[in-house]
Amino acid sequence: MILPSFIAVDWGTTRLRASLVGADGSVVATVGSDAGVQSVAAGGFPAALDAACRPWFDADPDLPVLMAGMVGSRNGWAEAPYAPCPAGAEEIAARLLALPGAGRRVSIVPGVDCRWADGAYDVMRGEETQALGTGVRDGLLALPGTHGKWIEMRDGRIARFATFVTGELFAAVSSSFVGRLAAEPHDDPAGAALAAGASKVPGGLTRALFQARARALAGDLPPAGVRPFLSRLMVEAEIAGALDLFGRPDAVHLVSGEPQRSIYRAALAERGLAVHDHDTPTVTLAGLKAIMRAAALGL
Amino acid sequence: MILPSFIAVDWGTTRLRASLVGADGSVVATVGSDAGVQSVAAGGFPAALDAACRPWFDADPDLPVLMAGMVGSRNGWAEAPYAPCPAGAEEIAARLLALPGAGRRVSIVPGVDCRWADGAYDVMRGEETQALGTGVRDGLLALPGTHGKWIEMRDGRIARFATFVTGELFAAVSSSFVGRLAAEPHDDPAGAALAAGASKVPGGLTRALFQARARALAGDLPPAGVRPFLSRLMVEAEIAGALDLFGRPDAVHLVSGEPQRSIYRAALAERGLAVHDHDTPTVTLAGLKAIMRAAALGL
Repeated sequence: MILPSFIAVDWGTTRLRASLVGADGSVVATVGSDAGVQSVAAGGFPAALDAACRPWFDADPDLPVLMAGMVGSRNGWAEAPYAPCPAGAEEIAARLLALPGAGRRVSIVPGVDCRWADGAYDVMRGEETQALGTGVRDGLLALPGTHGKWIEMRDGRIARFATFVTGELFAAVSSSFVGRLAAEPHDDPAGAALAAGASKVPGGLTRALFQARARALAGDLPPAGVRPFLSRLMVEAEIAGALDLFGRPDAVHLVSGEPQRSIYRAALAERGLAVHDHDTPTVTLAGLKAIMRAAALGL
Repeated sequence: MILPSFIAVDWGTTRLRASLVGADGSVVATVGSDAGVQSVAAGGFPAALDAACRPWFDADPDLPVLMAGMVGSRNGWAEAPYAPCPAGAEEIAARLLALPGAGRRVSIVPGVDCRWADGAYDVMRGEETQALGTGVRDGLLALPGTHGKWIEMRDGRIARFATFVTGELFAAVSSSFVGRLAAEPHDDPAGAALAAGASKVPGGLTRALFQARARALAGDLPPAGVRPFLSRLMVEAEIAGALDLFGRPDAVHLVSGEPQRSIYRAALAERGLAVHDHDTPTVTLAGLKAIMRAAALGL
């Protein structure tokens, strides 16, 4: 398999991570920094990339660069229009956004969008690369996060996907619902166990959230369990929603790190679902290599 | 019907409202103030009551006072233990909390609590009085709010009820999800219409919330519609949850004021449910009279 040497960049909201990839696909070196998209001013992206990768550029000024993530958003280096579902490495490689003014061959991986038959619309940037990097040809992927994604793969392509605002909602309600308990430690696993049960009670999330208060008042839920309760409650709502949407699979491919991995594993296992773990940096790099390979073959 | 002259007090988190009720049940006068429970320091409740009702006390130092609402909470004048469901005027009157140090006959209406068979627990303070004041003997009541209550009445008693944190959740997510749109007007009814549809799409509330962003990005949802979208989405989640919990009634008794009344009426009507309107101050006063009558008969 022919693969040009290139720089693989995962450039998200809060972090930049760049790897020098050799012609045989091996990683020669990796650098990371806090120069995420939100901390780079408009026009500052070429300099931020140079700052991260200067030694590699000095050694080979013609190294191509392939970047995925929020760097392709409206607030990033340049806005890369979404590729529509279904999208595999070929479709995405065909829509790479080249940045001609960068002084070298720099391209941005487009995000992917999805319009459901019922009108729902969805978008992602970065997760498409991770999904391709899992190597899953047919199956259901879960990528927990601020905006968690569930992605259905068919024939090695992203067939459809949905976003759940689990992390953002947890942050928004934590201050409101945990409130005066903030000074406590928040590690009592009894909270998560109680939430798993509460999520099965009819009435939906807005009822279940009040249980964090009412059951604390009743003495069912210790103060140190309120945060784990809220966290698990939202994870349960996400999983229930995703299985409702995609149907129940035999297994879920979980792309995450700790502590999400443990929380999701527990919640998925309790529903009798097998879990295959994928490490986020590993699949991101694998996805960038797959897209680079497709782009090189297409040239 | 014998009813002693008394002072009926609705003392909530943000407001105090007192009415002088005559022996024939008529309201002689009403006063209101911002001396809500959250703005009265511990120990300051007798003085706050005196300040509101002094002319009436001067005219008749022996007037009994009956108070409902958060004044009976841990942060109120004194904590009145909850009456358990099922609870009607008689059960509640039998558990009034007398305040002997007040210099006159002052009593607090207890809140009501409810333990569901599946472990869920619920509490209310003030809404029990409103529920009794509706005069509904058998039916389903909806009381929208920060902590909205749905109450099932059987034989004139509160049989069971559930809380939905619709208002608190809307406040918590508004700043997060509306964010940069805060400077816009937020009155486009297209937002509410889109939310009504989005709430029917599988995936639950954490998916539907993301639609506020994605469909704004797609151009389906104008910026001025994002807040109405979020508001209606949470109301739809509450109604769906409540009907799931209590079963579908022929009609819903809606206890509220504007703008909630219009929002809930629209959402309930779209589901083919008849709505009977009740005005909150009216049913609160009627509830206090019903409890006073039961207490007087019991003496």
